[in-house]
Amino acid sequence: MTIARGFPAAEFEARLERAQRRMAAEGLDLLLLTTEPDVRYFSGFLTQFWQSPTRPWFLLVPANGKPVAVIPGIGAPAMERTWIEDIRTWASPNPEDEGLSLLAEAMRELAGAGARIGIPSGPETHLRLPLAEYDRLRWMLPDAVFRDDAGIVRALRIVKSEAEIAKIRTACEIVSDVFDNWSGWLAPGMTEREIFRCFKIACLEAGADDVSYLVGGAGPGGYGDIISPPSERRVAEGDVLILDTGTLLDGYFCDFDRNYAIASPSAPVAEAYRTVHAAMEAGLAAARPGATCADLFQAMAAVLSSGGASAGNVGRIGHGLGMVLTEWPSITAGDRTELVPGMVLTLEPGLEYAPGRMMVHEENIVIRADGAELLTRRAGPEITIVG
Amino acid sequence: MTIARGFPAAEFEARLERAQRRMAAEGLDLLLLTTEPDVRYFSGFLTQFWQSPTRPWFLLVPANGKPVAVIPGIGAPAMERTWIEDIRTWASPNPEDEGLSLLAEAMRELAGAGARIGIPSGPETHLRLPLAEYDRLRWMLPDAVFRDDAGIVRALRIVKSEAEIAKIRTACEIVSDVFDNWSGWLAPGMTEREIFRCFKIACLEAGADDVSYLVGGAGPGGYGDIISPPSERRVAEGDVLILDTGTLLDGYFCDFDRNYAIASPSAPVAEAYRTVHAAMEAGLAAARPGATCADLFQAMAAVLSSGGASAGNVGRIGHGLGMVLTEWPSITAGDRTELVPGMVLTLEPGLEYAPGRMMVHEENIVIRADGAELLTRRAGPEITIVG
Repeated sequence: MTIARGFPAAEFEARLERAQRRMAAEGLDLLLLTTEPDVRYFSGFLTQFWQSPTRPWFLLVPANGKPVAVIPGIGAPAMERTWIEDIRTWASPNPEDEGLSLLAEAMRELAGAGARIGIPSGPETHLRLPLAEYDRLRWMLPDAVFRDDAGIVRALRIVKSEAEIAKIRTACEIVSDVFDNWSGWLAPGMTEREIFRCFKIACLEAGADDVSYLVGGAGPGGYGDIISPPSERRVAEGDVLILDTGTLLDGYFCDFDRNYAIASPSAPVAEAYRTVHAAMEAGLAAARPGATCADLFQAMAAVLSSGGASAGNVGRIGHGLGMVLTEWPSITAGDRTELVPGMVLTLEPGLEYAPGRMMVHEENIVIRADGAELLTRRAGPEITIVG
Repeated sequence: MTIARGFPAAEFEARLERAQRRMAAEGLDLLLLTTEPDVRYFSGFLTQFWQSPTRPWFLLVPANGKPVAVIPGIGAPAMERTWIEDIRTWASPNPEDEGLSLLAEAMRELAGAGARIGIPSGPETHLRLPLAEYDRLRWMLPDAVFRDDAGIVRALRIVKSEAEIAKIRTACEIVSDVFDNWSGWLAPGMTEREIFRCFKIACLEAGADDVSYLVGGAGPGGYGDIISPPSERRVAEGDVLILDTGTLLDGYFCDFDRNYAIASPSAPVAEAYRTVHAAMEAGLAAARPGATCADLFQAMAAVLSSGGASAGNVGRIGHGLGMVLTEWPSITAGDRTELVPGMVLTLEPGLEYAPGRMMVHEENIVIRADGAELLTRRAGPEITIVG
């Protein structure tokens, strides 16, 4: 499967225009962005180099005009290939002045000494800058007001464009094929570690860029932990295996799982699978514009609790996804976020059907005017039997 | 290649004892750790689930006694398999109280209301917690003193144990094999993207856990950007290709590169390679206990500048590595960190031998009492010729 890489400039122009309209409404003169997805959202700057924590990277979104990048020199050639024109660099690493005076100067130039500066500070955010450096920056701009971005970045990123949806859909299609063709990477007697390795290779061969996230595991009669790395244990008859993957295509994630019963499922396993599958059906029907995340939660939870089982310790029944494996919103009983067209979500009903035995089932959807559109290939109504 | 997974409890006991000795000297009652490597360093907690930014995770290192984990419920089964005994969980996500009251209670219990709390705040750190939540935490503990950790975590992590070195060495050996057997993943006419994909598959087949980081590229007569994702351009005669990978084994990275001349190198390419190779020899000779990073920089820079070339925009000639792709120290002209046995470093001499044409060469070493021990298999004195 192939896909157009990157985005046309119009995509970034639209994002910027929406941000600036909200900034004006909130009285913000600048957005200061420091994390990989936030910088990429407004610039298109895509590199794995963010894995190195040595150097900070900054993108400034002014009230008018295009974003300004203040970045280490090593990033200049890659940033020059984006739509960003104003790129300011410093020789890094330089712990004595790790870009801060260049940044402060740019901030003063763009918004004046008394600028009102929005920094994403709410749930699921962080500042990718040492605390001591953040203190220093505020000391360098004593008249500036540093505050929350009023949720502007969240409000923009939570709704995906068609170009973004196309990337997520392609990732979903690649991985749906791999999950369906399990005989290429799964057989009884393999260790969990071998299964993980073969699954990753199958995804790469099928066209994925990276299998950044792969968790899961197997256990006799079911699994109890869905965030651990694989063990050396050999998968055997009576096991249930889950693989849950966040696989990347052009910087966008799918995030879904599949369950496999080795040889044959026990009655409780088969029944647990049917329950989460039915909960998913209820979620797919409820995922419409105007419904809230809480509504969506209730629709799925009602099916899950009808079996008398516990919802386990996952804490939510799905979430947003896009440039990051998990994004806002959370599908919980308390989340009043209203679903709108363009939101990409994972629905993830799960239950604990016996002590320490979980069944989690996950699909990815996009909210459309008339309801949920599946991005993943819907899993079958009965658990897949291997061997 | 196989390796013992994880660490015996004695490894964590030794880390804790060293931390607590330094905490006493610095007058700190608690360390508050929020990032993946810092939490893992003291707990052994290894999961890719950190890629989800939804939930904060906390590890508290008290002045006496074992660390205490304050984590979302979803992490309990995995944390219970570590050496940590005191594991406190909350039902997450819960934006109303995302673990903060549980955390504050644990902090008061461990160190009193007026605790002096160290948070890693210096270079290459960040707080993995929304700024608004950090403000709220300080508001909940009005008598506590929040300050820098006095570099304690850096001081510990910068020197690796033999068990850590063994993991990095194994990662280096796996990838050295793959780089040497380039005919398995590289041929003229392949696109950069195909080369990246085949290289990742080769690493996985050779036993790597994940190829988390792979950058590089090719260009006629040389490459000019070493942090970008691959393009669809086909590698052709006259190209120079570099691949630079951070490949993981049991949570530890190698980080090195190799250069390949397609068909035959031009005279400037061949000469640039000899220069960086000679600079590496100088670095290997200079990397001894008692020397500083600045000494190591000068030894390599002297060879690089003898050719009259620019050092390019990388900004340093190597760095530490371990649980993260790049760690302290930086090998720069200004870094006075003294080399001590157990430090694992990458030496990375590079130069710009023509405008926009770079040559970067990288090996991984550990500092021993008598000098540098190579962890990677030393690259040859002439650039590898493909085809």
